[in-house]
Amino acid sequence: MIRTGLVSGIRPTGELHIGNYYGALKGLVELQERYDARYFIADVHSLTTHPKPDGLRGLVVETARNYLAAGLDPERCTLYAQSSVAAEVCELHAYLSMVMPLGELLRVPTFKDKAKRHPDNVNYGLVGYPVLMAADIFLVRTELVMVGEDQLVHLEVARAIARRFNQLYGDLLPEPQPLVGNAARIPSLSGQGKMSKSDDPAACIGLGDDERTVEEKTRRALSDPLRAYRHQPGHPTEDGCNVFRLHTFFTGEAEREEIAASCCEARIGCIDCKKRLAERLSGIVEPFRRRKGSIGEADALDALRLGRDKAKEAAGRTIADVRRAIGLQML
Amino acid sequence: MIRTGLVSGIRPTGELHIGNYYGALKGLVELQERYDARYFIADVHSLTTHPKPDGLRGLVVETARNYLAAGLDPERCTLYAQSSVAAEVCELHAYLSMVMPLGELLRVPTFKDKAKRHPDNVNYGLVGYPVLMAADIFLVRTELVMVGEDQLVHLEVARAIARRFNQLYGDLLPEPQPLVGNAARIPSLSGQGKMSKSDDPAACIGLGDDERTVEEKTRRALSDPLRAYRHQPGHPTEDGCNVFRLHTFFTGEAEREEIAASCCEARIGCIDCKKRLAERLSGIVEPFRRRKGSIGEADALDALRLGRDKAKEAAGRTIADVRRAIGLQML
Ligand code: SF4
Ligand code: SF4
Repeated sequence: MIRTGLVSGIRPTGELHIGNYYGALKGLVELQERYDARYFIADVHSLTTHPKPDGLRGLVVETARNYLAAGLDPERCTLYAQSSVAAEVCELHAYLSMVMPLGELLRVPTFKDKAKRHPDNVNYGLVGYPVLMAADIFLVRTELVMVGEDQLVHLEVARAIARRFNQLYGDLLPEPQPLVGNAARIPSLSGQGKMSKSDDPAACIGLGDDERTVEEKTRRALSDPLRAYRHQPGHPTEDGCNVFRLHTFFTGEAEREEIAASCCEARIGCIDCKKRLAERLSGIVEPFRRRKGSIGEADALDALRLGRDKAKEAAGRTIADVRRAIGLQML
Repeated sequence: MIRTGLVSGIRPTGELHIGNYYGALKGLVELQERYDARYFIADVHSLTTHPKPDGLRGLVVETARNYLAAGLDPERCTLYAQSSVAAEVCELHAYLSMVMPLGELLRVPTFKDKAKRHPDNVNYGLVGYPVLMAADIFLVRTELVMVGEDQLVHLEVARAIARRFNQLYGDLLPEPQPLVGNAARIPSLSGQGKMSKSDDPAACIGLGDDERTVEEKTRRALSDPLRAYRHQPGHPTEDGCNVFRLHTFFTGEAEREEIAASCCEARIGCIDCKKRLAERLSGIVEPFRRRKGSIGEADALDALRLGRDKAKEAAGRTIADVRRAIGLQML
């Protein structure tokens, strides 16, 4: 069976939290079963906003370890560092940039937003970010692109580029369809928005946290602010108690209903309720942590090299086709 | 003796005229003696304004034949198609674009000018033209860049990029110095401005013109408009007679003085004077035409492949150094 091609970029980040596990890792692991999935760790992209990355290579290896620990199978999918096809991506980017009107790029909302936030760092590369992303996509010429909601506008740019390019040079680039990840947004332990890296570390369950740390962090989580004493009943709803809200993500329905009933009658205290949440959280974090512990740098490099070879082959074919189409035949 | 490195771009153009011979070809041939000269035929650049080139490869070969006919020695200099190092140029371009503020590029006068002339074709690649030119230069890391007056502003951009890049990543890119070609501007036979491709072909001596064509074109050249009859004296000065002006480029001083004296006393007619100019012109065009006739496509390809290998080696070293500096270490 030929699986439909799918591509997705992965931001190189070392330390992940349980929100990432649900938001990014788990989804990509599931997709590798259904699609011919190409996942690239976007180390070249990261230069557009951080031109001086420290230890970028280490970060790429760490990212690969995370995804392998989450269950990516380097034989089943193609996991590669974007820099492994840097020459190809940049060359395609240059050709695509010649059919992309500047005005449209300047109007892309994410550019306007970044330009506002980093006014000193509006470099030429930043405005071309959607073109670089288009090059990532077209290099492997997949039908589908897995993107977050915030990237949909970039995908529209990529589709526009494909149309214009194909019009000029013949049907070469498939107009990619979006596959929008409906990633669960895990709330922060503090009850303030969703769990995120920029969060207070104490309000965020890291995928590297051991059981004791998970328990301690969970113990300090915000619960029902109206339940000051053990003997009072609580409000075990998504809006009434942040701990209960977290249970909705990690605890099965039957157990959740039992907790809710006990809480309404003050038969369970918040300390015990949080302990049960902590057990659920550790049920995810611990296996991940153990698997990651067994995946060394060498394993990650092996996987990335396997992915590199597969990606380079596809990229080489695309570049050859594109060069031929635009009339740049090599000697 | 280690010769100082010099780089220069060559626009891919098939049909050249005698103005080009003095304006571009002769200069580059002379420079190959004094410098370690790298000359690239800018086929990738040509895509920024003409995204659909017809027969670009043929044009590159033809351009190489012209320069070889003019005396470029592929063993002495490095003559290569820019597309031979397309991957390297585009990759370096991407990295350089990340340190180049967009605002400065939008203010480059040549961009503003082109944007005005081709308003429908202001693509992202066009605004990055000076960055692509910087990549061409830095790829071979030469101390000198041979540019025309009109390119000086682009060289300033390249110098600014080198400074910024070196500040961020260490001393890697030599800040290139300009070597401005003081190319002779050969006037048109019609007396209207300088000889150029867009000129009336009859007012332009092509480097492919045979002796009869050269003589006929010269016969119709504008001479002294105040000398209506053979028995009248002429005004043999640069401003008084266009034919005399052309003599100043192609005829030796002694002979020129003799012509001037004869003309002032009406001892020479314009027809004879033009015949003598035509002989001088053919004295340049004929040997060029014969040499070019002896250089086939295969010879040009041999030269370009030799150049490609030399250029790729230098480019590969630069890319490796740059990747290391910015932290993109390959697996
Ligand atoms: S017992 Fe659980 S659900 Fe009820 S208030 Fe306490 S933390 Fe919230
Ligand atoms: S003789 Fe020669 S220099 Fe004198 S007017 Fe004629 S063309 Fe000009």
